[in-house]
Amino acid sequence: MSEDQVSLRSIKDARERIASVIYRTPLYLSPRLTNRTHTNVFLKLESYQPTRVFKIRGAANKILKLAPAEREHGLVAASSGNHGLSVSYVAKLVGVPATIVVPTNAVEEKVGIIEEYGARVVKHGLYHDERMSKALEIQKATGATLVHPFDDPDVIAGQGTIGLEICDDLPNVDTVVVPIGGGGLISGVSTAIKSLSPSVRIIGVEPEKASSMYQSMKEEKIVRLTDTTSIADGLAAREPGSLTFAISKRNVDEIVLVTEEEIEKAVFDVIKECHIVVEPSAAAAIAALAKIKPRKVNENVAVVISGGNISRKILANVLSKNA
Amino acid sequence: MSEDQVSLRSIKDARERIASVIYRTPLYLSPRLTNRTHTNVFLKLESYQPTRVFKIRGAANKILKLAPAEREHGLVAASSGNHGLSVSYVAKLVGVPATIVVPTNAVEEKVGIIEEYGARVVKHGLYHDERMSKALEIQKATGATLVHPFDDPDVIAGQGTIGLEICDDLPNVDTVVVPIGGGGLISGVSTAIKSLSPSVRIIGVEPEKASSMYQSMKEEKIVRLTDTTSIADGLAAREPGSLTFAISKRNVDEIVLVTEEEIEKAVFDVIKECHIVVEPSAAAAIAALAKIKPRKVNENVAVVISGGNISRKILANVLSKNA
Repeated sequence: MSEDQVSLRSIKDARERIASVIYRTPLYLSPRLTNRTHTNVFLKLESYQPTRVFKIRGAANKILKLAPAEREHGLVAASSGNHGLSVSYVAKLVGVPATIVVPTNAVEEKVGIIEEYGARVVKHGLYHDERMSKALEIQKATGATLVHPFDDPDVIAGQGTIGLEICDDLPNVDTVVVPIGGGGLISGVSTAIKSLSPSVRIIGVEPEKASSMYQSMKEEKIVRLTDTTSIADGLAAREPGSLTFAISKRNVDEIVLVTEEEIEKAVFDVIKECHIVVEPSAAAAIAALAKIKPRKVNENVAVVISGGNISRKILANVLSKNA
Repeated sequence: MSEDQVSLRSIKDARERIASVIYRTPLYLSPRLTNRTHTNVFLKLESYQPTRVFKIRGAANKILKLAPAEREHGLVAASSGNHGLSVSYVAKLVGVPATIVVPTNAVEEKVGIIEEYGARVVKHGLYHDERMSKALEIQKATGATLVHPFDDPDVIAGQGTIGLEICDDLPNVDTVVVPIGGGGLISGVSTAIKSLSPSVRIIGVEPEKASSMYQSMKEEKIVRLTDTTSIADGLAAREPGSLTFAISKRNVDEIVLVTEEEIEKAVFDVIKECHIVVEPSAAAAIAALAKIKPRKVNENVAVVISGGNISRKILANVLSKNA
């Protein structure tokens, strides 16, 4: 795949297309994080989306772009998490049938939400690869459209609309910090921002325990990790996509790695300092702030707070540890 | 005071005036609460405001309406909570000096946030009346403008902008549920909504342990309670204001009372079912849903989620109790 499949044009088109489905989220200047980091820290609050996560943008762009004949054949996606939730939410809104493949050990509560949106849930396998094979099988058998969680130009263009909004709200942004899972979010955001302001610094963030993009950039080829378990489950992709790797290689200036402890502490810090509840994947980006060297006085740093879907167990644990 | 001091016109003017300071918050259709209540439940998420509470609207309208000469003399307010936070936030943004009177036993963290916004903090007394006397004293000595937490037509008009947004987003709203503390929020919201759609039902919510508006409506005069302690501290006003009482008497169709246990359970339910963290005062409105009789099939119910500033201790407690 060529990285030119995603462009400023395709992202601007996505913005028009998804406007009635998504919220235009605030870019909140945090006084506390600003005081602590000696930069101006702005939080792009995707945790305020209807599905509490940015993935609704990519899903909406993909689904709304389908021709009527394609819509009739429905959608299929493999995810029990934020991607599955977002695809089923948009599918219901648009009135397209959706099948979501989840692992056989998926948390009942997550499955319940997906089913409430009216999607059909298929339980299959334990690993992402097994679920993806099953999804491809369903795609072949039914003619359904597969909505990939990240390695799809329409999905990436949808996530890129976040970059447009950041530039609209903060034209003199200097640095944008983005968590990396499969790389869809940073691919879209960086394409939008580098197209509008090439000098803006794009910093990716990965957990030390799930640093597939970092390793791939270093080796200059896609590296597949065998084990990626992180409290930030949204960032635990084993390898970047071919498209997201190509785009990130071009656009990302630096990748910062954070530890599990730093992520967990950041979840608590954001509750304490901003009164905002974020999921560990988003907290990773906050944890990275301490490791980023400002390039100038009063640097404007925008942090993409990717989502707010934290498990109650982790939230309770973080609060009681720090009580 | 006459209830005509707040009008649709003054609320529309407020909307223009405060547009650059506040967020236009989403009206989120909750699938879970909709399934549970057999009505369509829409949450007006004021917990997404920059200060995580609706009070920024009233404070912004009051402060932005001041003449340059008045601004020079600064502001004074008596509150260590959401009102003090919101006044100091707007004051900093607009560049007006502010003095906030807080109780001598105020939580250091809350005081810290107010000071970070650049307001001067004066510690005085333990009770609201003592703080209010001190604020009036400062007003007389310095010529500062007192920003009352609720009984002021400009403050009420600011809160009323929530009503305009609800009607814009959901023109066929049937019922609006609003928590009541001093009554500023319900006065503004009900004035906007009854002006635009007189048949919309306005339901107020108070804790059983702090039901001053309910008692006052029943007695047809302002009733002052001697003791009002609730987990929903934002709703613990001892008496309504004279203006908010006059407006509420005219506009409010019904007041529902909720117990402390119901409020606490609702805090948990909203985390579980909506993945949204709300403060107990807002949760009270969710708790009331179970006690409201729908008037028709598919009734559209809008609930004002007044704020999200919950103490970490209460949040941890709620999560661990229900773990």
